[in-house]
Amino acid sequence: MKHALIAALLGTSTLFASAPAFAQAKPEDVIKYRQGLYQVVAWQNRTLGGMVKGQIPFNAAEFARAAELIADLAAVAPGAFAPDSDKGAPTRARPEIWSDAAGFKKVMDSFQAESTKLAQVAKGAKDVDAVRGQYGAFIKTCGACHDNFRTK
Amino acid sequence: MKHALIAALLGTSTLFASAPAFAQAKPEDVIKYRQGLYQVVAWQNRTLGGMVKGQIPFNAAEFARAAELIADLAAVAPGAFAPDSDKGAPTRARPEIWSDAAGFKKVMDSFQAESTKLAQVAKGAKDVDAVRGQYGAFIKTCGACHDNFRTK
Repeated sequence: MKHALIAALLGTSTLFASAPAFAQAKPEDVIKYRQGLYQVVAWQNRTLGGMVKGQIPFNAAEFARAAELIADLAAVAPGAFAPDSDKGAPTRARPEIWSDAAGFKKVMDSFQAESTKLAQVAKGAKDVDAVRGQYGAFIKTCGACHDNFRTK
Repeated sequence: MKHALIAALLGTSTLFASAPAFAQAKPEDVIKYRQGLYQVVAWQNRTLGGMVKGQIPFNAAEFARAAELIADLAAVAPGAFAPDSDKGAPTRARPEIWSDAAGFKKVMDSFQAESTKLAQVAKGAKDVDAVRGQYGAFIKTCGACHDNFRTK
């Protein structure tokens, strides 16, 4: 019912399409998966942020690989927000993820688009200045979601 | 020192090469990242296993995407076993990961090779029978590591 409602609201049924494992999963398993996924995103972002800030020597291949992995995870991330995974284990996911599904989809789409673009820009980048602008665009999408859809 | 020793043992310095964020990371952060990474692997494997077992309708594109994500994570997984991340938070990682670095590298290499091959086989697979054999080869690599390098 809730699935159908969200699909109708979005005019699409693809938001959660990347999660055929849904039907079998307990909410606490979805939450564990979700938190695991963002642990990997955060870790890979250490590489990106560290290079952009000059704390780690810039390496285009390593930067591109980290950005690509984040983009791949961004592509499946919507599947980590199953409608009934708003509780079942401690979670910072806010109810707005499900009550404002269209707004949430918008930030998730940006997260995916900007991380994908970052991976593309990084490939063959000559120096860190070549990725700096797009890194800024990418990191803004993290903040947009954290500000509106995650408890402090 | 330990880094150098392992590199010497392996005749390579690439095992942990995918983790430029190492230097800044606390052991507990590495452990959280590692566990998050394997949460994502396990979740994506629900899709693979569910399809192979006939619990989820087979979809070649979804299967390939899950296998690809696992292969991408397998590529960076060695970086989640920093030498000092044997303690600092509860972990099932066994000391053999570091004391038998060559043996551990072997199972990690298989994990990466077989998941990569699985993603290739899945692309354009006509039915689940086309992926069944390679799925078996892949899942064996999971077991090989769990049996020897993870506490029960």
